[in-house]
Amino acid sequence: MSLKDKDITIVVDAMGGDFAPGAVVQGAVEAVAESRGRVSVILVGRQAVIESELQKHSPAAAEAKIAGTLRVVNADDVIEMHDAPNAALKTKKNSSIAVGLALHRDGKGDAFASAGNTGAVLSASTLMLGRIKGIGRPTIGAPLPTATHSPCLLLDVGANVDCRARHLYEFGLMGSAYVAAMFGTRHPSVGLLSIGEEETKGNEVTLEAFKLLKESSLNFVGNIEGRDILKGGVDVAVCDGFIGNILLKFGESIPSFLKARFVRYASRGPREKLVALLARSALRSVMQEMDYQEAGGVPLLGVNGVSVIGHGGSTPRAIKNMILLAEKTVLQDVNGKIQDSLHRSRHGEE
Amino acid sequence: MSLKDKDITIVVDAMGGDFAPGAVVQGAVEAVAESRGRVSVILVGRQAVIESELQKHSPAAAEAKIAGTLRVVNADDVIEMHDAPNAALKTKKNSSIAVGLALHRDGKGDAFASAGNTGAVLSASTLMLGRIKGIGRPTIGAPLPTATHSPCLLLDVGANVDCRARHLYEFGLMGSAYVAAMFGTRHPSVGLLSIGEEETKGNEVTLEAFKLLKESSLNFVGNIEGRDILKGGVDVAVCDGFIGNILLKFGESIPSFLKARFVRYASRGPREKLVALLARSALRSVMQEMDYQEAGGVPLLGVNGVSVIGHGGSTPRAIKNMILLAEKTVLQDVNGKIQDSLHRSRHGEE
Repeated sequence: MSLKDKDITIVVDAMGGDFAPGAVVQGAVEAVAESRGRVSVILVGRQAVIESELQKHSPAAAEAKIAGTLRVVNADDVIEMHDAPNAALKTKKNSSIAVGLALHRDGKGDAFASAGNTGAVLSASTLMLGRIKGIGRPTIGAPLPTATHSPCLLLDVGANVDCRARHLYEFGLMGSAYVAAMFGTRHPSVGLLSIGEEETKGNEVTLEAFKLLKESSLNFVGNIEGRDILKGGVDVAVCDGFIGNILLKFGESIPSFLKARFVRYASRGPREKLVALLARSALRSVMQEMDYQEAGGVPLLGVNGVSVIGHGGSTPRAIKNMILLAEKTVLQDVNGKIQDSLHRSRHGEE
Repeated sequence: MSLKDKDITIVVDAMGGDFAPGAVVQGAVEAVAESRGRVSVILVGRQAVIESELQKHSPAAAEAKIAGTLRVVNADDVIEMHDAPNAALKTKKNSSIAVGLALHRDGKGDAFASAGNTGAVLSASTLMLGRIKGIGRPTIGAPLPTATHSPCLLLDVGANVDCRARHLYEFGLMGSAYVAAMFGTRHPSVGLLSIGEEETKGNEVTLEAFKLLKESSLNFVGNIEGRDILKGGVDVAVCDGFIGNILLKFGESIPSFLKARFVRYASRGPREKLVALLARSALRSVMQEMDYQEAGGVPLLGVNGVSVIGHGGSTPRAIKNMILLAEKTVLQDVNGKIQDSLHRSRHGEE
């Protein structure tokens, strides 16, 4: 039986995110309904609270429970968004994150998804699922919109702050496998973020990473600059998690910045106000494409399992998309493709 | 006699920039005309070519030459935009950059300005003018637009790729003095770019820089995140030149990205086409505020003199603004304010 013939079960952290559990429960009900039974969800968290949220979505939720596509598993502890990840994982043994990941590890679900504390999901996933053999550092990537039709997967965006060249190389390899599997891109182009296109431009770490990437079997296009991300044409942009996190958050702030600029423009006079009013739908459309809610979440790559991380501010729609993204990650066998790429590569860890 | 009563002479690299010498000569003529004799310009470069360009701007250029507000000094060598900076400075001894900086160093002009090879201007300025006592690394900053009325000065944006904590602290000090002098901001707020607001978040270098900035006399507001730049409210954002350069170029690519997105929106149908047409003026206005041409150039801080760096793609208007920016940098005594700040600080180099 191939994976495609099988129903997929996603274990969802019902307590994760700024609007949990309400937004998570609603998003889960919608994901199950939209998938028409293809996706099952296990909601993990404080059972009583989840059940009371589920009642708000009757009869859809009740029907899904009877059909077995929506289940609840209790977990008493909640890791809050502001908790220090490693300390919280130690003191809150029965957190929805730990219980949910254990279900996935033990085969009760095909993937785990959470819009909760990113650091805690990252640490717990790495500890409980383990790393893919040959990968030193699991990474979190994020697809950025571009001027063309294809996004640019930026990684790492915060999982690994101080990196060595070897890690940047691994990010390129995992990113390439992810883009090939998820977006169907053949031989994704991989660029190394730097401060000039020439091989001699960069900092100590990127100069060394350039060599590793150049010698690899990846479709490495060399150094790329900050402007090449939004311009499009590069499928995977590699950098350390310090830079990637700053860039990602800078990018996420563009819509609010533009909104403030247009409000100021509209305040200049009645003519400007009218133009801004008419422009609003165009702007909304353009900004929607920059909206993380659409993507639903970002993949944690390099662990022995599927762990998808949603945005802390996830709405029900973002949660629904996070669950469907987790389903696709399972169906497309991203981890199998990372392993294939490691085997082809001359840089696999011994 | 205070500086304000004195005419200011700006030495301008006539051969620097993608559209040199034509755009530079035109911009210089416009700067002199607009300042009504307050600013004199010395154009440095290949005399015959410059003279022939000047003839295109008669009678304004001829009048300025007679009044002595526009002069030409010959320099036979031209450092091209793609030349390796240090090699070019060695082989092209009589470059417009070297000759121009010597004029400034020898007191023939109050400042030097160039839209040429940034690396060469940086190296030559540091070598020929020397560093301000107490500054280890001169830096290049760039003002970024924000959602509020004040820009955010990002530095370093490429002069210093691998930095130590001490250098980040110096950038904060110089940036703060620049913003206070040039924008009239009292006690500018200084933020350290990192991946979380907490003092414990950062990479090895920023964690140490945090301590230095916290102990200083600067108005240090702690770590800021990528989203805090465009949001506004922070006057100076400190990072190493690798990150700053990537961020700056990413930011510069936003207008083209938006343009492409609106073109795609307009292609959806006649209604969208009309809306996009109407939105065009609003967009143009908003994008203009993101346009580097307006700022004219970025300051090189920390050298014993005034050296302003224009964008390689400078138009005549950008060159004019670059010259007026150099004038203001002299008038506001930015270097004096950097020295004052160093004296107040407990971290001045012994």
